[in-house]
Amino acid sequence: MRTTVQKYGGSSVETIDKMRLIADKVIAEKEKDTQLVVVVSAMGKTTNQLIDIARQASSAPSKRELDMLMSTGEQVSIALLTMILNEKGYPAIALTGSQAGIKTGGIHTKNKILDIDIDKVKTHLDNDKIVVVAGFQGFNEDGDITTLGRGGSDTTAVALAAKLGCTCEIYTDVDGIYSVDPRLYKNAKKLDQISYEEMKEMASLGAKVMETRSVEIGHRFGVPIYVASSLGNMPGTYIKEYDETMEQRSITGLSISENVLMITLNHVPYSSANIAHVFTRLAKAEVLVDMISQTSPVEGYANISFTTMVDDKSAVDEILNELKAKFPEVEVQEEDAISKVSVVGMGMRTQSGVAAKIFELFAENGIDFKQVTTSEISISYTIDSKYKQKTIEVITNAFDL
Amino acid sequence: MRTTVQKYGGSSVETIDKMRLIADKVIAEKEKDTQLVVVVSAMGKTTNQLIDIARQASSAPSKRELDMLMSTGEQVSIALLTMILNEKGYPAIALTGSQAGIKTGGIHTKNKILDIDIDKVKTHLDNDKIVVVAGFQGFNEDGDITTLGRGGSDTTAVALAAKLGCTCEIYTDVDGIYSVDPRLYKNAKKLDQISYEEMKEMASLGAKVMETRSVEIGHRFGVPIYVASSLGNMPGTYIKEYDETMEQRSITGLSISENVLMITLNHVPYSSANIAHVFTRLAKAEVLVDMISQTSPVEGYANISFTTMVDDKSAVDEILNELKAKFPEVEVQEEDAISKVSVVGMGMRTQSGVAAKIFELFAENGIDFKQVTTSEISISYTIDSKYKQKTIEVITNAFDL
Repeated sequence: MRTTVQKYGGSSVETIDKMRLIADKVIAEKEKDTQLVVVVSAMGKTTNQLIDIARQASSAPSKRELDMLMSTGEQVSIALLTMILNEKGYPAIALTGSQAGIKTGGIHTKNKILDIDIDKVKTHLDNDKIVVVAGFQGFNEDGDITTLGRGGSDTTAVALAAKLGCTCEIYTDVDGIYSVDPRLYKNAKKLDQISYEEMKEMASLGAKVMETRSVEIGHRFGVPIYVASSLGNMPGTYIKEYDETMEQRSITGLSISENVLMITLNHVPYSSANIAHVFTRLAKAEVLVDMISQTSPVEGYANISFTTMVDDKSAVDEILNELKAKFPEVEVQEEDAISKVSVVGMGMRTQSGVAAKIFELFAENGIDFKQVTTSEISISYTIDSKYKQKTIEVITNAFDL
Repeated sequence: MRTTVQKYGGSSVETIDKMRLIADKVIAEKEKDTQLVVVVSAMGKTTNQLIDIARQASSAPSKRELDMLMSTGEQVSIALLTMILNEKGYPAIALTGSQAGIKTGGIHTKNKILDIDIDKVKTHLDNDKIVVVAGFQGFNEDGDITTLGRGGSDTTAVALAAKLGCTCEIYTDVDGIYSVDPRLYKNAKKLDQISYEEMKEMASLGAKVMETRSVEIGHRFGVPIYVASSLGNMPGTYIKEYDETMEQRSITGLSISENVLMITLNHVPYSSANIAHVFTRLAKAEVLVDMISQTSPVEGYANISFTTMVDDKSAVDEILNELKAKFPEVEVQEEDAISKVSVVGMGMRTQSGVAAKIFELFAENGIDFKQVTTSEISISYTIDSKYKQKTIEVITNAFDL
């Protein structure tokens, strides 16, 4: 018997009526004699509303309780979807993250899945139940309720599929993975398939469909991930092992990160220890640092630029203030109207000249960039956000995306 | 060090602003060097709203999931109150029913507390935390989330106090226990103290302040219960062991149950087995049967009247339909405009004549009653609801309540 994990996001379960449509989709799959696990997010904007009310209660809500509060969002949606399935005559059971055995570690509001005790889910599947699991949540070794941060429900779904050795279907409000975000470029092409590596670069570099961490888990455990619209039956995109037929494309996609915060530290008294200290502090505060560039130290002082997200500004500022207190000569420059543009393609491993071609395009079109970083299958640039649209047009035209 | 359990109901934690007032009250007690457990209900009408949305999802929501859904109400309020306490500088920790070790048994939506694994709560108290516990909920042996039905949060609070061997303070929207519900009779007198026995009769007979089950637990484990207003500092009422000074009163209180459903079965083929069958079925469906009266069987047929609540009508009807299918000669009469009036007093054990005096009052004032039952410390009458107000006035005047 086939087993499948399906995941439905918040906009798909926004109302009871939408949940009924999802229930029908779930039932259609169940009717194919499939053992089915359904992961759902909180209804619509519930999580944001819960965060808002937490902020009314406290300017800095205790994170353990913030997790407890946010987890109610998925608890409501799994209970309701399960009631609907039961009423339609398809025995279903709702499991919170903790009940589904999802063990997590890390700090509250940004936990990571450590392992899943999958036995309970399997027992219910063997009893022919549709198992409806709360996305985004788990429990830690203290028995506290935890949440998984951004993209947490996708992570839950892919991790469950990894444990069950099956495919994971992510149903969302977009109908697949595009070479460029169709909200930014309306002629973008939908991809039939994309490799995990490309998707990871696309996701971490700003494609909003899937978070890197869930693709990473899929890659590590060989879980085929299918991304498609929760409405209708249009074909979506498979994220899967790299396949040589994909190599004909030099670039698979272009992705944009907005709300990038670029920090430049000028005149830092140079020692590896000083630099390490700053980035260790940032890591401990779970601030994700993305691009880092440093120029060679001159006369004992170094200049460093790095990027993170505007959301983490207050955590970053606290750490930078410590640094300034220690080294008053450091000049800190923060720029927050920054976008990051990345081109991604497995083909770049074997086809040279992509970087050169893009530098030419920038020069021809008067686009200034601030930082450049490269990986084996991607090149990323930070630019002033005012150049964003122009950059998208120039690159998509040149590479036929 | 003193330990106290405080419980705040839904109307006391209806908004963040009200929660801040409650937090101040909690802190004032904590400042007296008290180890403090705070039990809270869901905010305002949240539980009813959750039930409404469940009914939108399904006409007969699966009860396991209904429990899961309803339990989110308290989970939200404990998280928020704890955030407020933490922000005010008083370390607090929120525990769901399951995290607080509240083990339950029975059927979903009407569970009973079997035991509390109190160690976790004690550890947090010993670490000087204010422990904020979700009322109304626990978990069963399958690890499912359960709820405790009506008055569940009071039950949680008193059961925790029993385990901790301390006093339980119930803060609510009334300022104590009155001889008659002040909403029904505005000159009613507030009692300084009342015995568990009287309170149990008052509660089960319709006084809306405390449910019997929580008073029963208090009685069994000798937990002093203090009932007072969540606002202001007016003295409330102690519910405690019987004390001879209480005996001067022949009647302590008068209570009214409204929404009583009275069922009369005429012409039931008489056998103990038939009668037992009906009441066993009612018990299994967790329909609370209150007054039962049967006249002596005539020519092999019996007449029986019993009362329950109008809320349970659909469950009752299902069982009565089975009975009618089996014995077509049974005539079923249902009356739902019925009130039950009860007078309660430990003094009735030693003072005779209360029953006689009330029969006289009824006769003088033209009040017809349908059923009468007596216990050692109470007498109850069912009357047509149209006599309710008159009955209250006549009895309160005669007994100076």
